[in-house]
Amino acid sequence: MKEVKVGLLGCGTVGTGVAKLLIDHKDLISRRVGVHLKLKWVADIDIERDRGIQFEDGVLITDAQRVVADPEIDIVIEMIGGEGVAKDLILKGIENGKHVITANKALLAGQGNALFKAAAEKGVDLAFEAAVGGCMPIIKALRESLVGNHIKSMTGILNGTCNYILTKITDDGSPYDVALAEAQARGYAEANPTLDVEGLDTAHKIAILTALAYGMEINLKDVYIEGISKITPLDIEFAGQFGYRIKLLAISKNKDDSIEARVHPTMIPFDNLLSNVNGTVNAIMLSGDAVGEIMLYGRGAGMMPTASSVISDAVDIARNLLSGTAGRVPSLSYQRDQIRAIPVTPIEKISTHYYFRFSALDRPGVLSKISGVLGNHGISIQSVQQKGRKTNGAVPVVMVTHMAKEADVQKALSEISALEVVGDRPVLIRIEDDKLD
Amino acid sequence: MKEVKVGLLGCGTVGTGVAKLLIDHKDLISRRVGVHLKLKWVADIDIERDRGIQFEDGVLITDAQRVVADPEIDIVIEMIGGEGVAKDLILKGIENGKHVITANKALLAGQGNALFKAAAEKGVDLAFEAAVGGCMPIIKALRESLVGNHIKSMTGILNGTCNYILTKITDDGSPYDVALAEAQARGYAEANPTLDVEGLDTAHKIAILTALAYGMEINLKDVYIEGISKITPLDIEFAGQFGYRIKLLAISKNKDDSIEARVHPTMIPFDNLLSNVNGTVNAIMLSGDAVGEIMLYGRGAGMMPTASSVISDAVDIARNLLSGTAGRVPSLSYQRDQIRAIPVTPIEKISTHYYFRFSALDRPGVLSKISGVLGNHGISIQSVQQKGRKTNGAVPVVMVTHMAKEADVQKALSEISALEVVGDRPVLIRIEDDKLD
Repeated sequence: MKEVKVGLLGCGTVGTGVAKLLIDHKDLISRRVGVHLKLKWVADIDIERDRGIQFEDGVLITDAQRVVADPEIDIVIEMIGGEGVAKDLILKGIENGKHVITANKALLAGQGNALFKAAAEKGVDLAFEAAVGGCMPIIKALRESLVGNHIKSMTGILNGTCNYILTKITDDGSPYDVALAEAQARGYAEANPTLDVEGLDTAHKIAILTALAYGMEINLKDVYIEGISKITPLDIEFAGQFGYRIKLLAISKNKDDSIEARVHPTMIPFDNLLSNVNGTVNAIMLSGDAVGEIMLYGRGAGMMPTASSVISDAVDIARNLLSGTAGRVPSLSYQRDQIRAIPVTPIEKISTHYYFRFSALDRPGVLSKISGVLGNHGISIQSVQQKGRKTNGAVPVVMVTHMAKEADVQKALSEISALEVVGDRPVLIRIEDDKLD
Repeated sequence: MKEVKVGLLGCGTVGTGVAKLLIDHKDLISRRVGVHLKLKWVADIDIERDRGIQFEDGVLITDAQRVVADPEIDIVIEMIGGEGVAKDLILKGIENGKHVITANKALLAGQGNALFKAAAEKGVDLAFEAAVGGCMPIIKALRESLVGNHIKSMTGILNGTCNYILTKITDDGSPYDVALAEAQARGYAEANPTLDVEGLDTAHKIAILTALAYGMEINLKDVYIEGISKITPLDIEFAGQFGYRIKLLAISKNKDDSIEARVHPTMIPFDNLLSNVNGTVNAIMLSGDAVGEIMLYGRGAGMMPTASSVISDAVDIARNLLSGTAGRVPSLSYQRDQIRAIPVTPIEKISTHYYFRFSALDRPGVLSKISGVLGNHGISIQSVQQKGRKTNGAVPVVMVTHMAKEADVQKALSEISALEVVGDRPVLIRIEDDKLD
């Protein structure tokens, strides 16, 4: 049986999963692909640690350069992470004619365009199924399964850490800090959780998917980003009273050939399947003009689920190698000469529904003042609840709006903040609900 | 730009959708694939009907033989259905070196092995993404995305007609006949609904998926089949009281290298995502040893969603044609010489949980008699409810069992039916609930 030789760079959690699958599932993979994926090198700075794997003698090495330079290596799998060494090694691999697989969403979101260009010029594949949604085959779905569709929108829960924290606050009424600490204790959140909880990891992923879906380059800076660290049990409770759950959603839309890409806490109705995606799981709903709505659901992180996607890429490349067809499917879903700039709608210009919570003094006329300011800015209220429970002499006033413009909302909230009868900063959470308006 | 020439056989609902996508999305597809998929022929017995498509002159013909004989045609798309003409044309196409796409699950489930053999021998692709789950990329997921996984089980809602009817009974409490009539009025069920409601269509689909998942040939006769026509609002109501919804599930499991494949109404807990898949939508949950659980969700039928999957196949084949790599992914997911017979567990030998409803005379000792018989057969009761509401002098007694063997259950129910105090036939509905036992 023919062999395809694989070199693995970085043997941390996911790297170890990849090595396990290549070794433990060697026969399974060969029986399906008709070729043996041979793990020739595993490069890691720590080659002493027990990973529960019986590597063949001499496979574990510390010198990653040796892997990308080895003429025998067909596929390099980059599992180091970060944008420094990883990028250099990927470029070196491409330069040496290796096909490369990475799960490095930060690198792809930030510098992917240059990497894809280099790969295309060299005629090698740069694959990244594991970069978005862990085990969910979202990259393959966009590039292959939905190839006959104009993609209209994507709405996803793409960060397991945030989804775990929000699920915890929702289920237990824990404050954010307690839920975060629990996520950290369980290993779902890093000691420094910023990248996850402030939405940047989700933004990396939706930036990549946005490029693939609509045929444009990756533009991370076009993604509006807001994290979950200000979400309170109180807002989750109010959301429930309006029939909503709060999720950190990645939202990407193509409306009249203008793109919206944003990441923020979002209220969605109970009967939206995404509202029932709980814990560390990921899911994404795609809307295409032929398929209507289609959803993928699965573990978005973790050793084996992510490794499963890496193996899927490795097998695709091995199948291409057998027939000498690198670049069979273009990295960014469209042929390179068909990738176009598409105008992006800045957050100020989007329209959506909003939930507001104001902390207002409990006296007559307050509601009228607030709704007056909103009305002056063309924002009309769909429903309002004024709650009796005082905190610091103030009561929460919560509202859901009809469709409104973000810029108007921001102006109105500034004015309302300045009112004497309103304390604290108003809370704003956007709503995605087709049944409103 | 290069052209790949496509001939369409059958221009009914899905065929029309395929033609629409090839014509209306011509540029979109070319921009992604780098090749033009040219619809050269559309053969149908009715070439007068207005399909809302502006075909080029001479494209619509009545002679399907001309399509499969045309040396210029690269891909034949069979959308005729049935196992007669469709099969002959597919074989003729293969013989003439055409790649073939079909959505014909009845044909594949019944005679697919011979067709796949013919295609492999001729070195052409026989693709069928649209045969299972409409727009859901379940075939691609099994053959490509999950290639590094041992598939452990699949649980799916694969027939929109049945799911619509069950949803209708659940939501409105309509009797089965009323829900069926409503499905027919909306065009979701055929005038003769047997193929759908008695579970055969679902069985076709799970027979195909079972082969792909575990590396065996397609064996429709190994699938146990039970339809939904005996489901009553009463059982759905009781199910709800136990925390379950009733769905027609296709269940396929690989336990210790023995296969279970069955289609029957099944109670599943409210927190199982499949229980929230309502109306005509399909969904499937797959369990793999690397990914854990992964779910696909989308429209399982209809003109455009099904056509979207056909286009996905056509593009895959076009990409193979560009590089001369037919058979890049083996039809049945495993290399042909790796397809093995795997023992199948007959329904009598499976173990699961059961819901029973007995119609019992309302007098002392009845429950003891029933549970006595169950006990004699080693079936232990997890919970029981005896309901006060009499129908024909009898009251319903409903139970949920611990894990029990099907053969024991059948014997016990026969004995219980023969008891003087029990009227009618007992109702049996199987339960899938990991949290029981």
